Amino acid sequence: MTIQRIQVTDARFPFGEGMGSDAIHRTPVYSYAVTTLANGDAAGTGLAFTLGDGNDLVCRAVEHLSRQLVGRDIEEIMHDFGALQRSLANDEKYRWLGPHKGVVHLALASITNACWDLWAKRRGVPLWRLLLDLSPEELVATLDLSYLDDALTRDEAIEIVRSQQHSRTERESVLDRGYPGYDTSVGWFGYDDEKLRDNCRRSLDCGFRALKLKVGSAEMDRDLRRVEIVREAAGWDVRFMVDANQQWSLPRALEFGRRTGDYNLYWIEEPTHPDDVFAHQTLARELGAHKIAAGEHVPNRVVFKNYLQAGSLGFCQVDALRVAGVSEFIVVSMLAKKYGVPVAPHVGDMGQLHQHLVLFNHIALGHDALFLEYIPHLQQHFRHPCRVEQGVYRTPQESGASCDLISLS
Amino acid sequence: MTIQRIQVTDARFPFGEGMGSDAIHRTPVYSYAVTTLANGDAAGTGLAFTLGDGNDLVCRAVEHLSRQLVGRDIEEIMHDFGALQRSLANDEKYRWLGPHKGVVHLALASITNACWDLWAKRRGVPLWRLLLDLSPEELVATLDLSYLDDALTRDEAIEIVRSQQHSRTERESVLDRGYPGYDTSVGWFGYDDEKLRDNCRRSLDCGFRALKLKVGSAEMDRDLRRVEIVREAAGWDVRFMVDANQQWSLPRALEFGRRTGDYNLYWIEEPTHPDDVFAHQTLARELGAHKIAAGEHVPNRVVFKNYLQAGSLGFCQVDALRVAGVSEFIVVSMLAKKYGVPVAPHVGDMGQLHQHLVLFNHIALGHDALFLEYIPHLQQHFRHPCRVEQGVYRTPQESGASCDLISLS
Repeated sequence: MTIQRIQVTDARFPFGEGMGSDAIHRTPVYSYAVTTLANGDAAGTGLAFTLGDGNDLVCRAVEHLSRQLVGRDIEEIMHDFGALQRSLANDEKYRWLGPHKGVVHLALASITNACWDLWAKRRGVPLWRLLLDLSPEELVATLDLSYLDDALTRDEAIEIVRSQQHSRTERESVLDRGYPGYDTSVGWFGYDDEKLRDNCRRSLDCGFRALKLKVGSAEMDRDLRRVEIVREAAGWDVRFMVDANQQWSLPRALEFGRRTGDYNLYWIEEPTHPDDVFAHQTLARELGAHKIAAGEHVPNRVVFKNYLQAGSLGFCQVDALRVAGVSEFIVVSMLAKKYGVPVAPHVGDMGQLHQHLVLFNHIALGHDALFLEYIPHLQQHFRHPCRVEQGVYRTPQESGASCDLISLS
Repeated sequence: MTIQRIQVTDARFPFGEGMGSDAIHRTPVYSYAVTTLANGDAAGTGLAFTLGDGNDLVCRAVEHLSRQLVGRDIEEIMHDFGALQRSLANDEKYRWLGPHKGVVHLALASITNACWDLWAKRRGVPLWRLLLDLSPEELVATLDLSYLDDALTRDEAIEIVRSQQHSRTERESVLDRGYPGYDTSVGWFGYDDEKLRDNCRRSLDCGFRALKLKVGSAEMDRDLRRVEIVREAAGWDVRFMVDANQQWSLPRALEFGRRTGDYNLYWIEEPTHPDDVFAHQTLARELGAHKIAAGEHVPNRVVFKNYLQAGSLGFCQVDALRVAGVSEFIVVSMLAKKYGVPVAPHVGDMGQLHQHLVLFNHIALGHDALFLEYIPHLQQHFRHPCRVEQGVYRTPQESGASCDLISLS
């Protein structure tokens, strides 16, 4: 299956008042820089996520970096994809614009995800199935492990998969049960108290057992009031997370953590700047009662390695639309496994791609089947929207990575 | 002086065989994303540096981020520039593409540098003079100190400047003496042994007392041979630095350091991935004889803060064309001062802008007058090329930041 041409699309989806809003991003336009690898029979679709303006920059970078894929066979590409990905990431002129972060790395995410989607379609299976069917050696050949020598060698990566093989069968029951979801959309930043209260009740009615609230208000009292509202409306049996979207300084994050010690928060997400490994380490140490979650703005495996080495993370929220796609997502998941940190991805893809990856993480790597973020706002735009029933992701059965957009069909 | 219109230029300068080459970048095209803030009388020029392809992405981002400056007065802008810079850095849709790194942050560097250049021209003084004439409070008002609460508050920043005021006069003698340079161009990666040897001799003849060699060869023996050549040709009295441009894994960097223990290397620059704070910490600890230098790819003050907190740096090589321009350069220099680490900037600007900034660092912040990198390859393109005589930067006297390009005149 040869890639005959590559199409790059700037797809933007404005939506309603308050939806998607957080302390930093008040009027987001959920957008994808879409890579389409086309041949006669099928097309591989890869996504990188942005918030609107600048999505075109990612598209331009995809055009530049993807050119060398034209005319190549997808099986041949994926046979040694780790080396190809490394060479794309180190394009000697583009590399200066990162390295391995920002616009150029988002472009690599989109390209990488398109390759994985096309490969799964070529084999006629859902991505999770393809991933589970690869031998440890085949899988590791798709990964770029450079700069990880002190934390994850090739042999260690293979051993992580191999060591879980004997117990796989019992974990495969998740394919029938489905993977739990959590509801991010009860408490967007711009929603008023009444809507927040209603959303909590509706979410419980839909079967969710875990909810997330956006915090980071100019007045901390507003945050505290909203925390109170969620506990009142949703009760104490649900897992309750808060997300500050990097709004706080370290002292402010500490203050919030101390003032909410009685609310049994399951995690505090993005409390401060995503580059600040040591601020997160301090928070993790000082706020033992609340775990620290971060990752949606952590750009690559090297920074995640530092986060894990520092003990800064209670939950690893790697997003395959931020790091270099499926391959680097798997690398980070392996690192997290080694350091004993659960993975709960951020879903720039609205869960479409990650529903496959968390199944792989659970079954092949032995990660707990914790839960996956759920955001329904773009459902109508996907050809195969994820099915979440009673708060649980049903296992996707279509071939590929579930990322095809209707507008591009 | 009102900004009437903004021009953005993609300026690229291909040059000869081997020039500028290193272990990672074999055929660089030195390029600038140029911001020109124009009014009737003068134009402010700001530069961000890239290696060619992708320079257009930075230009596009400059166009997007700079629009709100049109119609504003430069004195009014600079009166509270820290707040403006913070708001540009946190543009709610662009921020996702970083935050504070990669293409969007390079764009902010270019815009910021143009503002400083215009301000100095407006006042009719060289940038170093403008910086020295600002009161501590005026200076700190141009800085974005967000996310630094645990390391550098506004009061501490003011105190760093104030505490150096009584001893300023003695350090002002550097204005007459000139600021020492070091020669990066003796040993570009692509140069053969004969050219390396010749360049060392020529460099000493020109008065340089410090040289740098590019390393990071596939065969470490080539690196070791070239280290030997430099010591043979230049002797043991010069300061001798090597630069691996991120080519090595941590174990490889450790190996190089151990095998060159007898060569009295003044620093090892960019030994491994620029995001890897802990790998640099390990190197700093294990290779006591060689200091670790890094910074040309460290994107912002938050990552520098982590580097300094970890004790990972022997020399801080912040580049005002990588971080958010003059303002963030000053913030990082203040952090380095607090942590006792000397600043030896990387010069994406070929030293044009940094010759002003190191004078400020020495006189106002009390940093040692160590030396400034010197790369002559773009001299003919600047309207006021820096004058380096007997290995020493002569103090620039023209008003502004010395960044005007002839091709844009």
